[in-house]
Amino acid sequence: MKEKIEVFEVGPRDGLQNERLILSTSDKVALIEELAAAGLNKIEAGAFVRPDRVPQMADSEQLHLELKKRSFGKDAYFLVPNLKGLERAMSAGISHIAVFTAVSESFNRKNIGMTVQESLALIRQIVDTAAQEGIRVRGYVSTVFGCPFEGRVSANKAIPVIEQLLSLELEQVSIGDTIGVASAKGVEEVIRPVLTSSDASRIAVHFHDTRGTALANALRSFELGVRTFDSSIGGLGGCPFAPGASGNLATEDLVYFFKEMDVETGVDYRALCETSLKLADRMKGRILSSRALQAYLANCQKNSVWDS
Amino acid sequence: MKEKIEVFEVGPRDGLQNERLILSTSDKVALIEELAAAGLNKIEAGAFVRPDRVPQMADSEQLHLELKKRSFGKDAYFLVPNLKGLERAMSAGISHIAVFTAVSESFNRKNIGMTVQESLALIRQIVDTAAQEGIRVRGYVSTVFGCPFEGRVSANKAIPVIEQLLSLELEQVSIGDTIGVASAKGVEEVIRPVLTSSDASRIAVHFHDTRGTALANALRSFELGVRTFDSSIGGLGGCPFAPGASGNLATEDLVYFFKEMDVETGVDYRALCETSLKLADRMKGRILSSRALQAYLANCQKNSVWDS
Repeated sequence: MKEKIEVFEVGPRDGLQNERLILSTSDKVALIEELAAAGLNKIEAGAFVRPDRVPQMADSEQLHLELKKRSFGKDAYFLVPNLKGLERAMSAGISHIAVFTAVSESFNRKNIGMTVQESLALIRQIVDTAAQEGIRVRGYVSTVFGCPFEGRVSANKAIPVIEQLLSLELEQVSIGDTIGVASAKGVEEVIRPVLTSSDASRIAVHFHDTRGTALANALRSFELGVRTFDSSIGGLGGCPFAPGASGNLATEDLVYFFKEMDVETGVDYRALCETSLKLADRMKGRILSSRALQAYLANCQKNSVWDS
Repeated sequence: MKEKIEVFEVGPRDGLQNERLILSTSDKVALIEELAAAGLNKIEAGAFVRPDRVPQMADSEQLHLELKKRSFGKDAYFLVPNLKGLERAMSAGISHIAVFTAVSESFNRKNIGMTVQESLALIRQIVDTAAQEGIRVRGYVSTVFGCPFEGRVSANKAIPVIEQLLSLELEQVSIGDTIGVASAKGVEEVIRPVLTSSDASRIAVHFHDTRGTALANALRSFELGVRTFDSSIGGLGGCPFAPGASGNLATEDLVYFFKEMDVETGVDYRALCETSLKLADRMKGRILSSRALQAYLANCQKNSVWDS
């Protein structure tokens, strides 16, 4: 029997939120529909954050309305940073939300103005309220391997925060390498103990490709039993902590990688690459960072035996 | 005890040979000296190929003379494609040469105008002559996982060619993913059987990062017991079969990766990155493809806690 993984697409939220160019609602709808048509079932679409601070996400209510008219609306995830965001999500009739915290205090303080424990208490509140409304909640935990302010983060420090998150009623916790400094060894030190107490279906990994290590870390995670992988179409998002460097692992690279490993992703690779090329047009020719996509493009242009 | 690997630097030959810009002999000498100072002990420096066809390598005799004056000369490798090249290498007093063949017939025919078996016969001749002169010979085998003309190459087809090469008196055989299509699964299918009959010290892997998979393939190779990895400073060389796409795995990415795995490479990462930045200047600002280098550069500029 073929092994299977699930790809969780974060481009429309985590990706676009960190891009300068603001994509129109209709472009976002087209992107999300194309991603869904390529086989991506789990997509983070928007965020209920302050529109004055994050104008890229200001149209989240409208986006959700548009998606609801189409087949995909019910499964889109929207990020909710606080109770105000949760209120907006509930008014909009959102059924899947995402919450976040981080392992390192400095990152949490600068990012959300809270200590890690305050943020976990908030997540508990959000989860309790969401549960009463039948809303499913996914959790992100950032800076698991390193923090842009504090440097290296040890597994001993990261694991208790992950375990606390898992003890809440989150459907899944996504373990984040926010600045792309995880090594395969570091991944093992965190993931192996976490998987002894939690089912693999409740764990996702979210690697950044800042130093080219994301696929190697995905491989080691897969070897350890992880079966859900976050990625961002075209590597959207860059690295906010190292301008000019790559950020999110590109979905094309992830899907190509597992396809070649003979692992089922449910995603049509060719349709995914074409979606990415259309996105590049919508982003006014932004160079997308996926290496697999660049090879796809180069080979299609010369009718190679590869990728075309 | 810390695990160790050896990095075999191919940038000055395999890399520069596939670049448009021709580096001067003095720039090559400076590059090779800096690489050696950063801790790279094995460097492929030049090639005795036709100067009219490969002007980038036309100065190989002169380069060797210059290197000989310095401490590094005796350990530089020079590629030798045929008996004429061997003659030139012997006249120049070269002590380390490299020879090559490929698994796929079409690639060999287009590349060197020979069948695979003809090329193996030639290598046997070169090895015999070299042995009499005390010259050490390294072998490359290309298109082990895929061929730009024939498509996918099966392990069943690749392994016998590798075994034949290993049966000659080559000090090491480097297994090449010429167009960057190897998967971790494909790597295992080739490497595992090869390592049952040969010592790991006689096997190297040479991955291209065309689709971003090189480090994952390096990880799987390392897990299987491989301890020698080819790479190219700055990812020099591009991908001749997919213009615009990445080619050779960048040495910075490889060294960063193993450093973070707590594996000894013998290379000073910071000195390596500085060498790469100087090379970029010498290459008139060519954008080097290493992601680790890009992150290093971005972080150094902002005095981040990382890489600086």
